[in-house]
Amino acid sequence: MADADNPTELIADMGRRARIAAAALARLPTLRKAAGLQAAAAALREAAPAILAANARDMAAGAARGLSGALLDRLRLDAARVAATADGVAAVAALADPVGMTIDRSARPNGLQLSRVRVPIGVIGIIYESRPNVTADAAALCVMAGNAAILRGGSEAAHSNRAIAAALAAGFAAAGLPGDAVQLVPTTDRAAVGAMLAAEGAIDLVVPRGGKSLVARVQAEARVPVLAHLDGINHVYVDASADPAMARAIVVNAKMRRTGICGAMETLLIDRAFAAPVDLVEALQEAGCEVRGDPLEASIGEIVIPADAADWDTEYLDAIASVALVDGVEGAMAHIARHGSHHTDAIVAEDAAVAERFLAEVDSAIVLWNASTQFADGGEFGLGAEIGIATGRLHARGPVALEGLTTYKWVGRGSGQVRS
Amino acid sequence: MADADNPTELIADMGRRARIAAAALARLPTLRKAAGLQAAAAALREAAPAILAANARDMAAGAARGLSGALLDRLRLDAARVAATADGVAAVAALADPVGMTIDRSARPNGLQLSRVRVPIGVIGIIYESRPNVTADAAALCVMAGNAAILRGGSEAAHSNRAIAAALAAGFAAAGLPGDAVQLVPTTDRAAVGAMLAAEGAIDLVVPRGGKSLVARVQAEARVPVLAHLDGINHVYVDASADPAMARAIVVNAKMRRTGICGAMETLLIDRAFAAPVDLVEALQEAGCEVRGDPLEASIGEIVIPADAADWDTEYLDAIASVALVDGVEGAMAHIARHGSHHTDAIVAEDAAVAERFLAEVDSAIVLWNASTQFADGGEFGLGAEIGIATGRLHARGPVALEGLTTYKWVGRGSGQVRS
Repeated sequence: MADADNPTELIADMGRRARIAAAALARLPTLRKAAGLQAAAAALREAAPAILAANARDMAAGAARGLSGALLDRLRLDAARVAATADGVAAVAALADPVGMTIDRSARPNGLQLSRVRVPIGVIGIIYESRPNVTADAAALCVMAGNAAILRGGSEAAHSNRAIAAALAAGFAAAGLPGDAVQLVPTTDRAAVGAMLAAEGAIDLVVPRGGKSLVARVQAEARVPVLAHLDGINHVYVDASADPAMARAIVVNAKMRRTGICGAMETLLIDRAFAAPVDLVEALQEAGCEVRGDPLEASIGEIVIPADAADWDTEYLDAIASVALVDGVEGAMAHIARHGSHHTDAIVAEDAAVAERFLAEVDSAIVLWNASTQFADGGEFGLGAEIGIATGRLHARGPVALEGLTTYKWVGRGSGQVRS
Repeated sequence: MADADNPTELIADMGRRARIAAAALARLPTLRKAAGLQAAAAALREAAPAILAANARDMAAGAARGLSGALLDRLRLDAARVAATADGVAAVAALADPVGMTIDRSARPNGLQLSRVRVPIGVIGIIYESRPNVTADAAALCVMAGNAAILRGGSEAAHSNRAIAAALAAGFAAAGLPGDAVQLVPTTDRAAVGAMLAAEGAIDLVVPRGGKSLVARVQAEARVPVLAHLDGINHVYVDASADPAMARAIVVNAKMRRTGICGAMETLLIDRAFAAPVDLVEALQEAGCEVRGDPLEASIGEIVIPADAADWDTEYLDAIASVALVDGVEGAMAHIARHGSHHTDAIVAEDAAVAERFLAEVDSAIVLWNASTQFADGGEFGLGAEIGIATGRLHARGPVALEGLTTYKWVGRGSGQVRS
């Protein structure tokens, strides 16, 4: 064990052990990994009393430190949350294993048989905040995709995270998985985060899971690749051809089903030729949403709160929406290109040609036609779970689950071919 | 036009114009992009006298500055090289267009139709050294994949690059492609490279093409994602079950066909149980290769030059090979795990079980069975061309061509679905 007081040495040592574990995990057949996750799920259920006791210590310390109610809620575990966490781990065990999957194959004229085969990425660092369930969620996804994980949770959840990680380790050990498959950084020293972000060669990918300031710090400092989730300034564009009832239902759901998630609509764009713009604004207001817009708009100006320029670039994550009238799909796409964050944008339209244009041309990780932006979620996309929603352009975009935690290699089978 | 004396402002301005061009390129149908490349190829052929005149200026300046013969050879263009460059651009026009390709699709239980569709990455920066043909090669690949390119070539090729870029621009303009689809950085100030590497948000991906020091600088400084090609410390492992004649042919070809390319073998690993290790060493020596190994090895010790510890970690890129005897495939894989660079490694074996184990467990971008490592090449892999060979783990690995210059988005088609 390296000196925990020297974060660089600590992370380097954890990285070396993770690399050895990753090599072993990469070779494990699906059933062995699944058995490990099932054992970990059972261990989590068995350890529920210990996990809840550890969580109570974190909660007491958090309350004493004056953490906000929202933060304490994220930190809080109860029997149902521990059971749901265990169920989540077991559910990952049932997902299709991407490792070993052939992406494509070809036969070259010289007889060389080429294929691209999915392989694990290697060592994945997860940096997260107060939710202790991430310890189990992230570990399960990493391991099922054949990767070793180095987890660094928030200091306020230190006892909870340790108890959960201990249960996972017990389950993995019982099923014969490598002991270092999942390692929890044993210090809450913030310098350990810096050491992870600088660990080129030791950590292959860092996934930050948390609020904007965490993600921003990770992106600013990282020397290792980052799978990041930035803002979700998401738009719903209601075309003149939209069915008014469908538009109303989608707009209200996209904004108000849950206002704090990254898939929530922040800006409503209404075609000037749409028949019932007032209905959409009033539907939002009736659902409890504050609606901000241009007071000089003839149709909706009198019922909205005046918007200022910053509103079009704001991710409210709250019961607030901005609304703008635009000139058709061209106007909508221009607005989205200028103000969007390339996360999730939707069109409501009956005109298929207009919708297909929107789907083709809007440059976002997720584009939707006649569906709510709140579907931006790995579970809803059939991925079974998600490590996060990626808003970068490379490697993986949108909801990322097991496949996004793999890469590929080229495999060539020949019969003595030499290159001329 | 921004102030060319302020590199940050210059690159920011080029980035803004590239972003607009990229949006237009992303929408262009395949035939329009192909027509643009064909027109660019024609323009290159037509401009050959001007390009050769510009190149003569670079060559004269280079000779006056005392550039090495190897560097001057890389810089030199002649009529045949210009014609080959034009042919290369035309060949890219004939490749399958990845943009718009559906990767996979699914129907969710609620009726939402999901698909993942390939889209361009956006704005790609290419940083290269003295070979002026990269200007055309890289531009063609970027544009065919729907991306705008910002090119920064070596100062010693400045006139050649300008002449080639002017021809490309003329061809693109004649075919109606965006004027800023390909921009050549108009200054050879090294600070422009730094500005490109810092251009987060303006440049989506940087591809360095050149020697180790260039790639190392790009990787050390870059704040934007890099598709990098590092060392190719490639191994050929000859198993006890190998056909001796096949082993000899592959080993000699892997090392000696061209010693200076990244796919060349650097280390030969011979199973202690292989019948004819001396034959392999002598075959290399007869082909003009210096062979370094352990002088204490009973079989080959007397015919090799003593190796030191650094040899196992050295990419010679020359007519030198290191050779080690290992204990079967396990020993070979342990050596590769310790000393390899995850580029290309091959096994020669008749025993399929041993070979499949090597293919599955060796963690390299390319693993080959009974074929020469010199096949590590986009053309040989049927990709038609390559922007480079990626040795990183994310996004793309091995030879990267058009597909590696794209990403994807999720497209959902619904019928009014809202999330419950």
